[in-house]
Amino acid sequence: MGSLNDIGIAAGINILSALGFLLAFALLRIQPINDRVYFPRWYLKGTRSSPRGTRAGFSKFVNADMSTYLRFLNWMPAALQMPEPELIEHAGLDSAVYVRIYLLGLKIFVPIAVLAFIVLVPVNWTSGTLENEKTLNYDEIDKLSISNLGKGSKRFWAHIVMAYVFTFWTFYVLYHEYKVVTTMRLRFLANQNRRPDQYTVLVRNVPPDTDETVSEHVEHFFAVNHRDHYLSHQIVYNANALAGLVEKKKGLHNWLVYYENQHARRPAKKPTVKTGLWGLWGQRVDAIEYYKSAIEELCKQEDEERQKVMSDPNSIMPAAFVSFKSQWGAAVCAQTQQTSNPTVWLTEWAPEPRDIYWPNLAIPFVELSVRRLIMAIAVFFLTFFFMIPIAFVQSLANVDDLERVLPFLKPIIERNSLKSVIQGFLPGIALKIFLILLPMILMTMSKIEGHISISGLDRTTASKYFLFIFVNVFLGSVITGTAFQQLDTFIHQPANKIPETVGESIPMKATFFITYVMVDGWAGVAAEVLRLKPLVMFHIKNALLVRTEQDREQAMDPGSLDFGTTEPRIQLYFLLGLVYAVVTPILLPFIIVFFSLAYLVFRHQIINVYSQQYESGALFWPDVQRRLVAALIVSQILLLGLLSTQEAEKSTVALLPLPVLTIWFHYVCKGRFEPAFIKFPLQEAMVKDTLERANDPTLNLREYLKDAYVHPVFQKNDMYELVAMDEEEKNPLVATRRQARMNTPVDSKFNSSSGTNEGEFSRMRPA
Amino acid sequence: MGSLNDIGIAAGINILSALGFLLAFALLRIQPINDRVYFPRWYLKGTRSSPRGTRAGFSKFVNADMSTYLRFLNWMPAALQMPEPELIEHAGLDSAVYVRIYLLGLKIFVPIAVLAFIVLVPVNWTSGTLENEKTLNYDEIDKLSISNLGKGSKRFWAHIVMAYVFTFWTFYVLYHEYKVVTTMRLRFLANQNRRPDQYTVLVRNVPPDTDETVSEHVEHFFAVNHRDHYLSHQIVYNANALAGLVEKKKGLHNWLVYYENQHARRPAKKPTVKTGLWGLWGQRVDAIEYYKSAIEELCKQEDEERQKVMSDPNSIMPAAFVSFKSQWGAAVCAQTQQTSNPTVWLTEWAPEPRDIYWPNLAIPFVELSVRRLIMAIAVFFLTFFFMIPIAFVQSLANVDDLERVLPFLKPIIERNSLKSVIQGFLPGIALKIFLILLPMILMTMSKIEGHISISGLDRTTASKYFLFIFVNVFLGSVITGTAFQQLDTFIHQPANKIPETVGESIPMKATFFITYVMVDGWAGVAAEVLRLKPLVMFHIKNALLVRTEQDREQAMDPGSLDFGTTEPRIQLYFLLGLVYAVVTPILLPFIIVFFSLAYLVFRHQIINVYSQQYESGALFWPDVQRRLVAALIVSQILLLGLLSTQEAEKSTVALLPLPVLTIWFHYVCKGRFEPAFIKFPLQEAMVKDTLERANDPTLNLREYLKDAYVHPVFQKNDMYELVAMDEEEKNPLVATRRQARMNTPVDSKFNSSSGTNEGEFSRMRPA
Repeated sequence: MGSLNDIGIAAGINILSALGFLLAFALLRIQPINDRVYFPRWYLKGTRSSPRGTRAGFSKFVNADMSTYLRFLNWMPAALQMPEPELIEHAGLDSAVYVRIYLLGLKIFVPIAVLAFIVLVPVNWTSGTLENEKTLNYDEIDKLSISNLGKGSKRFWAHIVMAYVFTFWTFYVLYHEYKVVTTMRLRFLANQNRRPDQYTVLVRNVPPDTDETVSEHVEHFFAVNHRDHYLSHQIVYNANALAGLVEKKKGLHNWLVYYENQHARRPAKKPTVKTGLWGLWGQRVDAIEYYKSAIEELCKQEDEERQKVMSDPNSIMPAAFVSFKSQWGAAVCAQTQQTSNPTVWLTEWAPEPRDIYWPNLAIPFVELSVRRLIMAIAVFFLTFFFMIPIAFVQSLANVDDLERVLPFLKPIIERNSLKSVIQGFLPGIALKIFLILLPMILMTMSKIEGHISISGLDRTTASKYFLFIFVNVFLGSVITGTAFQQLDTFIHQPANKIPETVGESIPMKATFFITYVMVDGWAGVAAEVLRLKPLVMFHIKNALLVRTEQDREQAMDPGSLDFGTTEPRIQLYFLLGLVYAVVTPILLPFIIVFFSLAYLVFRHQIINVYSQQYESGALFWPDVQRRLVAALIVSQILLLGLLSTQEAEKSTVALLPLPVLTIWFHYVCKGRFEPAFIKFPLQEAMVKDTLERANDPTLNLREYLKDAYVHPVFQKNDMYELVAMDEEEKNPLVATRRQARMNTPVDSKFNSSSGTNEGEFSRMRPA
Repeated sequence: MGSLNDIGIAAGINILSALGFLLAFALLRIQPINDRVYFPRWYLKGTRSSPRGTRAGFSKFVNADMSTYLRFLNWMPAALQMPEPELIEHAGLDSAVYVRIYLLGLKIFVPIAVLAFIVLVPVNWTSGTLENEKTLNYDEIDKLSISNLGKGSKRFWAHIVMAYVFTFWTFYVLYHEYKVVTTMRLRFLANQNRRPDQYTVLVRNVPPDTDETVSEHVEHFFAVNHRDHYLSHQIVYNANALAGLVEKKKGLHNWLVYYENQHARRPAKKPTVKTGLWGLWGQRVDAIEYYKSAIEELCKQEDEERQKVMSDPNSIMPAAFVSFKSQWGAAVCAQTQQTSNPTVWLTEWAPEPRDIYWPNLAIPFVELSVRRLIMAIAVFFLTFFFMIPIAFVQSLANVDDLERVLPFLKPIIERNSLKSVIQGFLPGIALKIFLILLPMILMTMSKIEGHISISGLDRTTASKYFLFIFVNVFLGSVITGTAFQQLDTFIHQPANKIPETVGESIPMKATFFITYVMVDGWAGVAAEVLRLKPLVMFHIKNALLVRTEQDREQAMDPGSLDFGTTEPRIQLYFLLGLVYAVVTPILLPFIIVFFSLAYLVFRHQIINVYSQQYESGALFWPDVQRRLVAALIVSQILLLGLLSTQEAEKSTVALLPLPVLTIWFHYVCKGRFEPAFIKFPLQEAMVKDTLERANDPTLNLREYLKDAYVHPVFQKNDMYELVAMDEEEKNPLVATRRQARMNTPVDSKFNSSSGTNEGEFSRMRPA
């Protein structure tokens, strides 16, 4: 299926388009006007400020320094130069470990590809079964694949031996990687500066008490049951309404600043505004006065709401953040059961303050299990039956039907040009819109499931998305047909037929997946580095909407690694690589190119662009490992199915131990490493407590933790993140080299003149 | 299949045989000579001594008091009279909860049977499809079953509604029962007297240290990481060789006492013994001298071995029992992870001292996972392929083959009588021997898996045995054929065909299972109460071997509830009941009779007979619940399969939510109740600590725990259990009413004259 020639042409086109993206990126990134699009991470860190401020005229927007154009590919080695410990410090452990997934792909597939090309390709090539059967359509690529072997051939033993070798190699790499990541996580946790979540436990489902308020109840409970360790606690308020008001006030404040700026620039003309909808209708009034009074009004409302939330017992959720005098005490409380009823006083480590998903804190235990049941069913239906509503929408898009159902639209539609547009676009658009919305739908489902941290939401979204991709992209491409039809086929087939059906068509789909890797993988990654959407959005916002410095800050949109959608996609490539390693090794180089390119690009992105919303300490690794092992098992079962159709029964039996071994490997890894991601060992806690006491014997922990877990709207400082950063700044256990604060123009000349970001590297690296 | 008449006859026979057993029991138990067979529990408790001591002549052996014969069925109400709290105190929570499983069967099936007979039986009976198709062979019993409905009948809706009703009723009963058992367990743990295991944690996989001994290492680690709570620890020695010596000495000591007794009775004749094999060959020497010197020799060996074990660092296992100053401290240590490497310093609650399975304490972590992998594979092969070796043995039992392979046996075999015996017996015997050995084989497998407590071994054995029964008894009877053939069928059938195949033959097997319930259930339970084997063994031992009072004590063999083999059998009845509730409700009364009879009998047995080896606090209940839920799901899937063959597609779809709901119910129950069986809440620990301090402020805990976890062979007192009992006696938090010690003849007259055991009940009950 598909000659080498075809693939060569496709590869050429895709390589060219990827190179085009990369070239465009290389040129665009050295333009000062795009500086905030391609280096937002450094702006947020405060070590870079707009190069436009220091230049005049034309060079404010376009880079005229020709020497930088000669070095336009410098970003590639630069992305690789930052050593990993510094990367962790700069971008966080989550990001540093995330790019290791791409590296892991290289570690697994480069040796496998070498072996496969040395052993399997010659074995397949010299077999020549396809040549003998002249009646068959075959292509050069099939001569390299397992299809070239005749039924019952002895040469299958080579593939079986290789399947074992590849599996054990993957075991080795996965085990080693899990070990490294575990070590990195433990070292990261041990070296962290003091953070509120190290001392704090989240208690949920505080049982109602007729005599005491929630606050008193919590205090009494922990003062009794953790007598020597309890320090203080923070009640959780239901402040969603208040959060809305605060948000609204922020918007009005921006407008106020904007009009004040305008007025300052042109004092002659008083800016005015219409009071109606979107400022388009209504009475024209003085803008500054109007916004001032509106803000005042809102302030009053906000104060009232704040008073209400603080005083109304109904707005107090049955949850609390309980802080302890030592990390040991917190570790004990987080890992033990408090009362004989396991549905109340549920304790767990508090997430980082910025990682908390506040609305889910108050879901009671019973409701949680109902929600999970409903969502499990919903995911099942979404995965297997999503085509039904889309087909329905597509049928609506049939113009004639549309006219019959909604006759009043007839005159509009009947215009010829519009009709053809609707006919041509609508059906495809429905599916496209669904696929674009899918991550959001999955995220909403995860939110309904009731996870309390944003990192947890991301992780469960990734699981759901992987299931969707596996069923609808992988299986859907192999056995053509919708997921629902597959489900039907699978149910009506014998258990041993399913891997056979899938396995048999695996070799025939190699060309398709090679193209898929190039289009979705290569071009997708190249597009990622170009950041076309943020680039366009930034310039639109900059031109039309930016009124204040703060606005420009917001228009920057650094984005972040979207774990929930990007990780499942990588997993698809792992799956393809593992499945085709034995069957059609020619696919491997394409996967390797993808992993190399992606590693380069994402390393560059996390250094220069992304701003992570939270830091979970690589808590996602067990999920990554689980999906990798699942991919390995799928590949083994499919190989089993494929071989069993080739009249090689003995060899099929020889493959049976592989999935068993893999499952066992999974449990060994899980037992060996997973606890490091779930539990916090008491020894570590004790060591950190001892260190803390030695380093800072006068620390007032109560004062330190006082406001850490207050709902963001109650924080005095709106820029919440800065508080935590300030604390770090003041109490560095490990000295940081951060000198400048946000928006201070220190050191900026150096950056803007160099045009590349090696400057930062040398400054970030220890002297 | 099988007319009502046939079943009536079978039922008659089985009822008669069961009644025969019960009658025999009723008569045998009031004979003084059998007193130790039917009331060993009271002997072990020390509240009963031999009635034979107080009588003379004939009445020493046979009960001549005619009035007791008139009341020979008194044991039945007596078994029900002891209230549950007293039962818990008398026989332990394990036993009390165990008999609740039978009660649970009644709670589930009595209402289901009533409903089924009111609704389903009339629906089936009046359908009359079978009557119309005269060509078919059918019986009255089939007219009561679902088979009487024609294909595509609307009446299936009655069955579907009933399936929902039955499922929800089962949910309700199971949930309620789980709640009750959880409450019982928590109350039991809270009311327990002080016990060493409440303060003690078992640490395994202590990492090797080059500078310190294991003991020092343990002490330093816990003194640092549990600074405020660590009290002391006890090292675990590998004392298996020493245990052998101690056992041997005990045997010699018995012989010595026996000969001394003989000599005392007939001082004229010095007893002699031959020194050779089993005392049959060799030189004749003076028996008393011989045994005295042999014991002396053994004592010396034992001392040497003891010295060796105590001093040799290699005999110290990398494990220890660590005790804490408070239950809170122990609860914290047992439930937390100690170091960042989760394969060392593994902590868990120490089992009761008598529950520990010592040989498994030193298995390293990696070896454990290899052992579990191998055993999982072994269980799979045992379950599905056990017929292969047996068929091999059976083929050997073909006499002609045997003669060809072993020609020297020919003259022996050719004797006609022997030949027919071998021909007839051998094949059956191979299977029978295997089935008798099966629990032992499964227990050995569990031991290899490395569980450290005897209760844990019992629980995993039960899981394995249930799998075996489910595959080989249930499925094996429904789809006739060996498990291996079934496996083959299942693999080669579509996933939706499997429940159809099984479901379709379910109604046809109703008669078979009714007979099975009567033979295995009714007669089996009646045989259990008769205790035929212990009865015979006791009298044989009494006549031939009993030499000392201690020997008679040992000959008594009270036995115990063998959880590993009896619980899976009950589960089979639950499975049958749930499967046939909708299909052939006529089976339900037979199940109900079984559960009633078994409840009666086992309640009697745990009161009067069994002596439990350990007390786990109903730790097995989550397993019971899990298997019940599994049975429920199996029944639902089979009903689904059955209906889908009846051309009732819509109704089949209506059943689909049932298994989903059941799985969800399982997780709800698991989340709600299971933690009470795994974790120990800190609040409870704190309450108990406070009580302890108030009750006994001067308690020297270190002294109390000093010898609790010493290996049994190092205990000064050989009768280890008594130590714990003494401790309880001395420090009763809840006053006990035990007055007499073992073998003291207090109060015995009362028992022996009454002949029934109401006497004990009135004495045990609070005044």
